[in-house]
Amino acid sequence: MSKVSFDNRLMFTYESKSFPGVNKVASLVREDLYLVTGFRAGEYTRGSKCRNLIIFGTVDKSDYLKELEDNGIIDLEEVRGKWEVYSFQVIDRPMDGVDHAVVIAGSDKRGTIYGLFHLSELLGVSPLVNWNHVLPKKKKNAFLTDEVNMVSKEPYVKYRGFFINDEWPAFGNWAMEHFGGINAECYERVFELLLRLKGNYLWPAMWNSNFSMDGPGLESARLADEFGVVMSTSHHEPCMRSGEEYRLLRGKDSLYGDAWDFISNREGITRFWRDGLLRNKSFENVITLGMRGERDSLILSKDASLQDNIDLIKDVVKTQNDLIKEIIDEDISKVPRQIVLFNEVEEFFYGNEETPGFMNDPELDNVTLMLSDNNVGYTRTLPSKEILDHPGGFGMYYHMDMHGGPFAFKWIGSTYLPRVWEQMTQAYEFGVRQIWVTNVGDIGTQELGLSYFLDLAYDIDKWGGSDAAITEKYMCEWAEKQFGGMLPLSLRNKIKKILWDYTGLLEKRRHEIMNYNVYHPLHFGEADKVLEISEGILKEAAAIKKRVADEDMSAFISLLYYPACGTANLMKMWILSGKNELFARQNRIEANDYPEEIDKCVREDAVLIDEYESVDGGYYKGFGKSEHVGFVNWNEEDNKYPVRHLVYGANSPRMLVSRADDENYMTGLEWNDHPQTWRDMLRPDVDSIAFDLISGSEKPFRYRIHTDCSWLLFSKTEGEVAKRERITLSVNKSLLSDKVTGTFDIESVGIGCVHVTVEAAPPDVPKGLYIESDGYICIEARHFSDIKDTPKGGFKVLAPYGRSGSAIKVFPVTADFKDEKRRPAAEYRFAASEDGEYDLTFELAPSTPVTFKPEQYIGFSINGKKTVIINTVEDPDRPFFLSRQWQKEAMCNVKKVTTCVKCVKGANSLMFFGMSPGIVLERILLVKKGMDLPKSYLGPGESYISFCEEEGNE
Amino acid sequence: MSKVSFDNRLMFTYESKSFPGVNKVASLVREDLYLVTGFRAGEYTRGSKCRNLIIFGTVDKSDYLKELEDNGIIDLEEVRGKWEVYSFQVIDRPMDGVDHAVVIAGSDKRGTIYGLFHLSELLGVSPLVNWNHVLPKKKKNAFLTDEVNMVSKEPYVKYRGFFINDEWPAFGNWAMEHFGGINAECYERVFELLLRLKGNYLWPAMWNSNFSMDGPGLESARLADEFGVVMSTSHHEPCMRSGEEYRLLRGKDSLYGDAWDFISNREGITRFWRDGLLRNKSFENVITLGMRGERDSLILSKDASLQDNIDLIKDVVKTQNDLIKEIIDEDISKVPRQIVLFNEVEEFFYGNEETPGFMNDPELDNVTLMLSDNNVGYTRTLPSKEILDHPGGFGMYYHMDMHGGPFAFKWIGSTYLPRVWEQMTQAYEFGVRQIWVTNVGDIGTQELGLSYFLDLAYDIDKWGGSDAAITEKYMCEWAEKQFGGMLPLSLRNKIKKILWDYTGLLEKRRHEIMNYNVYHPLHFGEADKVLEISEGILKEAAAIKKRVADEDMSAFISLLYYPACGTANLMKMWILSGKNELFARQNRIEANDYPEEIDKCVREDAVLIDEYESVDGGYYKGFGKSEHVGFVNWNEEDNKYPVRHLVYGANSPRMLVSRADDENYMTGLEWNDHPQTWRDMLRPDVDSIAFDLISGSEKPFRYRIHTDCSWLLFSKTEGEVAKRERITLSVNKSLLSDKVTGTFDIESVGIGCVHVTVEAAPPDVPKGLYIESDGYICIEARHFSDIKDTPKGGFKVLAPYGRSGSAIKVFPVTADFKDEKRRPAAEYRFAASEDGEYDLTFELAPSTPVTFKPEQYIGFSINGKKTVIINTVEDPDRPFFLSRQWQKEAMCNVKKVTTCVKCVKGANSLMFFGMSPGIVLERILLVKKGMDLPKSYLGPGESYISFCEEEGNE
Repeated sequence: MSKVSFDNRLMFTYESKSFPGVNKVASLVREDLYLVTGFRAGEYTRGSKCRNLIIFGTVDKSDYLKELEDNGIIDLEEVRGKWEVYSFQVIDRPMDGVDHAVVIAGSDKRGTIYGLFHLSELLGVSPLVNWNHVLPKKKKNAFLTDEVNMVSKEPYVKYRGFFINDEWPAFGNWAMEHFGGINAECYERVFELLLRLKGNYLWPAMWNSNFSMDGPGLESARLADEFGVVMSTSHHEPCMRSGEEYRLLRGKDSLYGDAWDFISNREGITRFWRDGLLRNKSFENVITLGMRGERDSLILSKDASLQDNIDLIKDVVKTQNDLIKEIIDEDISKVPRQIVLFNEVEEFFYGNEETPGFMNDPELDNVTLMLSDNNVGYTRTLPSKEILDHPGGFGMYYHMDMHGGPFAFKWIGSTYLPRVWEQMTQAYEFGVRQIWVTNVGDIGTQELGLSYFLDLAYDIDKWGGSDAAITEKYMCEWAEKQFGGMLPLSLRNKIKKILWDYTGLLEKRRHEIMNYNVYHPLHFGEADKVLEISEGILKEAAAIKKRVADEDMSAFISLLYYPACGTANLMKMWILSGKNELFARQNRIEANDYPEEIDKCVREDAVLIDEYESVDGGYYKGFGKSEHVGFVNWNEEDNKYPVRHLVYGANSPRMLVSRADDENYMTGLEWNDHPQTWRDMLRPDVDSIAFDLISGSEKPFRYRIHTDCSWLLFSKTEGEVAKRERITLSVNKSLLSDKVTGTFDIESVGIGCVHVTVEAAPPDVPKGLYIESDGYICIEARHFSDIKDTPKGGFKVLAPYGRSGSAIKVFPVTADFKDEKRRPAAEYRFAASEDGEYDLTFELAPSTPVTFKPEQYIGFSINGKKTVIINTVEDPDRPFFLSRQWQKEAMCNVKKVTTCVKCVKGANSLMFFGMSPGIVLERILLVKKGMDLPKSYLGPGESYISFCEEEGNE
Repeated sequence: MSKVSFDNRLMFTYESKSFPGVNKVASLVREDLYLVTGFRAGEYTRGSKCRNLIIFGTVDKSDYLKELEDNGIIDLEEVRGKWEVYSFQVIDRPMDGVDHAVVIAGSDKRGTIYGLFHLSELLGVSPLVNWNHVLPKKKKNAFLTDEVNMVSKEPYVKYRGFFINDEWPAFGNWAMEHFGGINAECYERVFELLLRLKGNYLWPAMWNSNFSMDGPGLESARLADEFGVVMSTSHHEPCMRSGEEYRLLRGKDSLYGDAWDFISNREGITRFWRDGLLRNKSFENVITLGMRGERDSLILSKDASLQDNIDLIKDVVKTQNDLIKEIIDEDISKVPRQIVLFNEVEEFFYGNEETPGFMNDPELDNVTLMLSDNNVGYTRTLPSKEILDHPGGFGMYYHMDMHGGPFAFKWIGSTYLPRVWEQMTQAYEFGVRQIWVTNVGDIGTQELGLSYFLDLAYDIDKWGGSDAAITEKYMCEWAEKQFGGMLPLSLRNKIKKILWDYTGLLEKRRHEIMNYNVYHPLHFGEADKVLEISEGILKEAAAIKKRVADEDMSAFISLLYYPACGTANLMKMWILSGKNELFARQNRIEANDYPEEIDKCVREDAVLIDEYESVDGGYYKGFGKSEHVGFVNWNEEDNKYPVRHLVYGANSPRMLVSRADDENYMTGLEWNDHPQTWRDMLRPDVDSIAFDLISGSEKPFRYRIHTDCSWLLFSKTEGEVAKRERITLSVNKSLLSDKVTGTFDIESVGIGCVHVTVEAAPPDVPKGLYIESDGYICIEARHFSDIKDTPKGGFKVLAPYGRSGSAIKVFPVTADFKDEKRRPAAEYRFAASEDGEYDLTFELAPSTPVTFKPEQYIGFSINGKKTVIINTVEDPDRPFFLSRQWQKEAMCNVKKVTTCVKCVKGANSLMFFGMSPGIVLERILLVKKGMDLPKSYLGPGESYISFCEEEGNE
């Protein structure tokens, strides 16, 4: 067994004929190894003796590799001619005088670089070692054996990268602080991060900076090329010129004219593009084609016809291709190019019935068609079968940060891995394999989502697939990479839970659009659940922080503590605000306790940001600066922090009685008594109800609970309440032989008397059916009683996934069953309380149609009746993207499709069928017609079902 | 000229044959004179010498009077046999040894008493001398000459009185405090008050007290009779037994049985009534007939048919009449009786098409039919022509206090005199002349309204009529009576203004249903107007208080300071709360100034009550106790004081720009700029606009105002704003030759820029037309351009009146023009901006139909087109009273009838016609279709009109 030891005799080969970027990366890796072993590897001199040697190089760019190949010691044919592949071999005695070696042989520049970083990772160095200062675990006797020998696969997606965007105030301030600007020095850090994460492609910052001018000059572009980073530009910046360049260079006397207008200033604009191509032609680029208006606006006025727009864009692309042929390569098929089908450009591409779009324009041959998501992480139009074999393939522009509609999210990274998994795996299956680029805003706190996105693109076979649980595996591995060196396993496991918890909160609602009235403060206990998770995060994270060494604090705070606690604290702030608002409206005297608690959260928000920006000598300074509270517009303009509310107590003692989960309350006063009937205990799984005795006055009240029903048990039956006291009512159902109705009174002594009726029943219900209670039936989609696959596909459970934690989806994801006779189905069985109409709501992931047509169908049937097919697009006369429906669904992260069905008393069967691709079913809700469910964001919990003994599909 | 001097030689005659109550009253008058003169009059011994003598007595109950009559010195025939009349004569030498005398000769017991109190009043003693301890002005040489000689008229209304009701916590606590209960000692004070105010009739307190049991025993009833007070009972207490008596006396072994049920317990109930009649038969009573359920509820279940109910009530009345015949007088026509047509009893009385009501039941002959108001001061059904000559006549039960729907008002008296004038004069004209009784709750702070009500009933010729300004005269005289002795005229005039101001505020909205969201905090400046009036009251009242002597403080606080300041402070509290709520919602940093201001008001409310209850050795203790803040139900249950709101400033400086009268604001931020256009200056009467620069952050902003328009002038163009700065934009219109449009920018330096467009025009508009601006035309009803009377009636202006201060109404008030060919009309001329549809709203007094039918019509025509007739009752299928419309109108004190009309560009004429009686038109509003007027409670101010030089109808 061959073996290399990482001791004080380790050396690295360096060759002058190597790519300079490769040698630079080797030096980074040497520093990585130093962090692990405490030894700094030397530079090997050809022919000298060496105990442990790292031989690295690129095929046909390395004498060492040629020699090893010539000597039959390694087989370079495994990598030669491939894209970004490397061979990684531990071998003994590769050369005279060398005892042990790792041979890293890359197929090309990036292959070699990935191979080198692979070495670091094998020794436990995180890709975030330099970005977040994640210190590896120190090892006394580090070694590798030939068990790790491998040849890497070609990456599944050709270009994988990110977009630094929306860079003010966060990224911009960070760059100014550390590098004096968004310049080459700054980009060197970004390139390293990109490459370590196995990316290769970048859209640079462009709000107020010009990548090819601010290096200074071309320095950033040159450095990118040296590192093997393929540069491109965002969707509206053609010919390698950033959007702001024209603004700087235009003018009355400018060669480029003074109008960003291809019609009136064709010559100037063409010259502008030509000069951009000339300038950047020697670097590896993917050139953006097309044209939009200035600052990402319409290119023609609103009055222009579709045909005008199509003609213009075709003219533009032809002009750009001609320039590329002239300047870069006559064989334009060799020049990587892209065109982004963003906003209205998508319409021009597809055209309509009267006006064919530019999709068949031969100028698009070999141009990658860049598609995009819906701004919040759900892909829009995917390649249809007709265009699937488009030469040039497809790309995806995906948002983990947004500065635009439906709402901006720029603060703490809010990416929930299962969503990326589901959407990007689907995109890949649909043929989006050429370019994946994600907008990560300022990068800070986006590390988790970005890592997954790039790892998925690099190896979708490993991290994609049809089992969402892969994201749990990923999260574990990721956490081990970042925190493995700093904390014991028990705490690392707590960290993994925190990571799930805070990203799970954000999957329900993002920071900026959280508010006091999102979660109902009481109904279904949803606010308390969010509060419990948030407080759990804050408590656990604070406890873990005490165990973190100073040198690890940079990584701990930036990758866990700040994003998790920042999120949890913000959620807590709004939950408390919601309670404050409701309780003030109800005149609960406890409302007055909240302003101080809210204030603590507001101050804690600032403290957390300050801590993040101060740790590690201010290394993250700038990254915490984005506004993130109480957006009322799509961006932070006119945003509002919580309003705090204070009440006056009533002049006399006052009792309010409220179920813990209901905003309706009783006062038991003479004229406005509103007695309630509680029916929960008819549910087999409910044998207790919590309710609150609440004071509406500074003066306490005394209470006594009376009942004639011996089967009603109270946790307390008398006392005095100054603010609030929670009472639990319980029933020993084993004593019940039949349904019973009882009453009890809560007397506020000397004031009034509340009257409550309680119904309860023994837990004796039909098996295998979800049971209606309080007028509704709620079923998690994963809890079907049966599924039926067809040879063409079938439902699988997604978990973890979505707002409620799980869902079902048809696989293969590309299959369309709308016009099939046999469709996959999931069956749900439930018991309705009576014959009659019910509102049936399917809660779906807020997907968008996979085609440009505003159509995405679901289908179902009740009790074997005719299949009902519904287009989930509410307004099929306009594109789904940018519709009101899109906006609403994107904010709440759910698509609700409601229809009226007839149910029969007793057992019913609901079949949900596979129809259009992209449909993900999360929950099913049936509500008896005329019944008003209590208002809530997440809806009720799942209904009760009793299984036969051997059953259960969990 | 005969003359009596009120010197130390003044004496009073006393005769043992006189009514004891008369002699008691004479003693009260002697004490009154002592307060004026400092001399206590002696008791005259027949035959002795006397310089100045007060001879008083009742015709045929006085030897003195007989002697004077016999001697031809006075003419008793002027009074003999009349109802409550007195002759008041100053004469010299009436008898031997007597130099000068006042002879007071009453036609009956009360006539004599009124004559005696008339003497006090002539000497400047207020009727409230003992109730509010109003001290008269001291006079050194008081005298009367024969210039005051007169014979009083019979009162216009036979029975005039009030109802002590809703007596807990206020009246009850007051009575307990001073008299140990609601007993005879307590009632003696009440009787005196009633008689001094020229009343004669009383419904006693009955919540928890029994007038004929708690005296102790019959003492209160006996005393009432002694004083000449005619006792009755409220609408649901038949046969002189209070409502609670049955509860006390019922039982299994009770003679009266144990069910308040005339069907199952006919014998017991009949016996109960019989015993009541027997007990009280020797006193002067008006006996209530009929029957309702216990505690003023339904007598039969909801399922009972109309016929069942009618049969029952007829049976009941017959039974009661039979008892009265048996016990009191076989000639029942001599026994004053009443039946109250309250709530559903009104329905039984009228019946419907299938089922005739009990209105023609001969048992009702000579029974007074008591009608009622709508609980808030607008009379309901009035006698129709068919029943006008009902033997027994009609009465009115009128609320100045309410404990019931649509809302309770029990705190400070909220009666606005013009409303009482208009409604009760109308009732009188319709024939309601037998009984007037007003519910005054605890009496405390109701003195003004009660005085007017009783004076009006006593002499409607003097205080009624068709000119509402009579109420101003009344208020002046009333104020002079109460404050004439304590303050100089200049301050008394301020007091008169305060009285109008605070009752005017209450005419707009009563205390209990005032809230933060009644007046819009900004729109049309309505909140600021209320705030200005309120603060004016508080300031002036405090200043006057410093000038009031300690001994006058009881009267000053109880009759002016407390009711006025209590009202003003409450209004101020809610106006500030409204601003706080809106400003917090807008994130104005100034919002944070309000909680403390609100808190001051909340504390001031308690201070004012405490002052009222403490002054004069705690004389008013109890009267301030009613809850009065933030009712959310009809009563105080679950009422809520203002919520106070606190905001956080934005993290960066933030400017909000808002017109002083508009809740919409501009931030001038890049993406969410909402530039406004201001068109007010197109109005001829507007040449300036106030707007606010408001900070949304703790950090101040700097601003600069730029414009290219030299005609736009600003009160300030740059500065720094920490909270708010008001800027006035003005235009010198004399420089304009045509309509102009200009723009200006308000730059918040370094943040954003607000853009405003301004339109202005020279003040050149057609004469004699109300001019549309901002899409609406508003006209005060009194500002007609013309009126046309018919021989049967015509419109007259009412002022002061209603929410906006004036109105018009057809006189005579009984005239119905619906089916007439010639109708009175008022014409309004206005200029519309364009041809098109307008929403035409008539703002009317919230009257109820004068008949039982749910019909009350208005009529109008536009530009000579066909007359449109509208039933103002929205749902004519049910009685108006207790409808949703009734509730809404009663709360807002306005009836709005909206219809769509077509106007032409330029001059239009609107004719408003007299139709149904009871209609009072306050304002007319035309709003261009599709235009949304800013939300407000009172609506916009009046539109502009330019008169020809000699014109003008003000």
